[in-house]
Amino acid sequence: MKLIAFDEGRVGRLDGDDVIVLDTASTREFFERGSRVPETGERLKLTDVRLRAPIHPKKFFHTAGNFVEHHQELQAVNWSHPVHKGIVFFQNVDAVIGPDEDIVYPEHLTKELDYELELAVIIGKPGKFFGPDEAIEHIAGFTVFNDITARDIQRREMESGVFSFSKAIDTFCPIGPWIVTADEVPDMQNLAMRLRVNGEVRQTGNTATMRVPIPHLVAYHSPQVYSAGDIITTGTISGVAAVQPNPFDFYLRPGDQIEAEIQSVGVLRNRVVSWEEHYGEPAPEKLNW
Amino acid sequence: MKLIAFDEGRVGRLDGDDVIVLDTASTREFFERGSRVPETGERLKLTDVRLRAPIHPKKFFHTAGNFVEHHQELQAVNWSHPVHKGIVFFQNVDAVIGPDEDIVYPEHLTKELDYELELAVIIGKPGKFFGPDEAIEHIAGFTVFNDITARDIQRREMESGVFSFSKAIDTFCPIGPWIVTADEVPDMQNLAMRLRVNGEVRQTGNTATMRVPIPHLVAYHSPQVYSAGDIITTGTISGVAAVQPNPFDFYLRPGDQIEAEIQSVGVLRNRVVSWEEHYGEPAPEKLNW
Repeated sequence: MKLIAFDEGRVGRLDGDDVIVLDTASTREFFERGSRVPETGERLKLTDVRLRAPIHPKKFFHTAGNFVEHHQELQAVNWSHPVHKGIVFFQNVDAVIGPDEDIVYPEHLTKELDYELELAVIIGKPGKFFGPDEAIEHIAGFTVFNDITARDIQRREMESGVFSFSKAIDTFCPIGPWIVTADEVPDMQNLAMRLRVNGEVRQTGNTATMRVPIPHLVAYHSPQVYSAGDIITTGTISGVAAVQPNPFDFYLRPGDQIEAEIQSVGVLRNRVVSWEEHYGEPAPEKLNW
Repeated sequence: MKLIAFDEGRVGRLDGDDVIVLDTASTREFFERGSRVPETGERLKLTDVRLRAPIHPKKFFHTAGNFVEHHQELQAVNWSHPVHKGIVFFQNVDAVIGPDEDIVYPEHLTKELDYELELAVIIGKPGKFFGPDEAIEHIAGFTVFNDITARDIQRREMESGVFSFSKAIDTFCPIGPWIVTADEVPDMQNLAMRLRVNGEVRQTGNTATMRVPIPHLVAYHSPQVYSAGDIITTGTISGVAAVQPNPFDFYLRPGDQIEAEIQSVGVLRNRVVSWEEHYGEPAPEKLNW
């Protein structure tokens, strides 16, 4: 099933080019109800609805360092810290935006806006302290995540051994375009991944090169407790702007169109817009200490 | 006002030793409704109700490094990273427990369980990208937070420049005993703080020694967006176990009673219990990579 959120708080599933409307208040409630909710009987054209972020999760686990090649490219540029397996932090659930929503460039805060394509896993069944064998029951589906990151802020944060702000600014968490349920993904460890900026391919990879299988990753983080509808991401692949020899040729700029694509899941499109285009006024001054 | 959550999802305010029941589904809804909700007319004895975590926030911002003396004690033991102003990460909203709820010792994951007393600020009015002058309107109240931390896990995490798991394990976020609204706190920058373990004072301090005033801290993090009822913590004071010359004499053990107290706010009491006492079976094996 391709599960969508659309218009003002409506939920549906795709049937070809149609939307079958589901009788539930949110996609999170869909999972809280064990993925069993009735249809309303209403059928709409997909072209007549406005897709929204496919879920607003209670928690958004962000893991990192899982892909061999991203690990190697960070080492090659002497990244400040070794990237262990198991890195995790919580993403900002209020920074989530959906397909075709704009990423607003906070020009007063950063000059180094980067992209990171990630496969996001949707947790269906809640639970805690479970092992890899049980993890598969908790994986309900997948969506695409583009981890927008202000690298200059991140570098400064990491000097203190933690980062969060750099990835948590308003509009920095695009997800979508929908949730593909696990039964429609033949092999979650063999999905091609590709991110394009203005049509130019920047990242390519495959979930096959993850250092840790997804069920193991999900189980490893289960002491932090999963609620139904939680997201856990799986790390990015090679090709981010920060590791290029000329990163400023690659960092995002207002007007850029990003397409983040994962095989069997979908394409998530977002545009970067200037502060002034979005708010109709210049960015405020940066607040310092 | 002292705002409480009690029994199974009920909300009230204290009137001496009585509880005036409020007609709202949660304390978060109380703030979403602009702190204006009617009373139900019901009055209960405080001794007849079971206090719960005073709020389950949408987001739980955890800031660090704000107190001069904690900063100095970390430097004195050559802590791995310099502690900049402005450190922030998201706490696990599913690890929140309330007053008199047990902290369950995950013996398979840590041998170094520490405490950290912090003042937690409750955001009333939502907002983003605002300055210190406006911040005061967003501060609705305060509660006590005991930031339970597995230091061995934290050290390992910080090698990769991020930490979260060490503070996010199930039951690691006790808050309470209630929310004191801002109008009842005469000066938020002059509140005595004290944490006791089994009656022995471990941490003492005062919000007067913060390096950054609370409104500035709240404003600084506003690019990450506040929802009504969000929590933002303000960092701990000196005296955590990890910085003692003999930390293993100070780390928490099953059976320990912790009292975390902040002047004008209240005392938050929690007990540490063994895994077996809580679950009736030994802790599971640790999952490695």
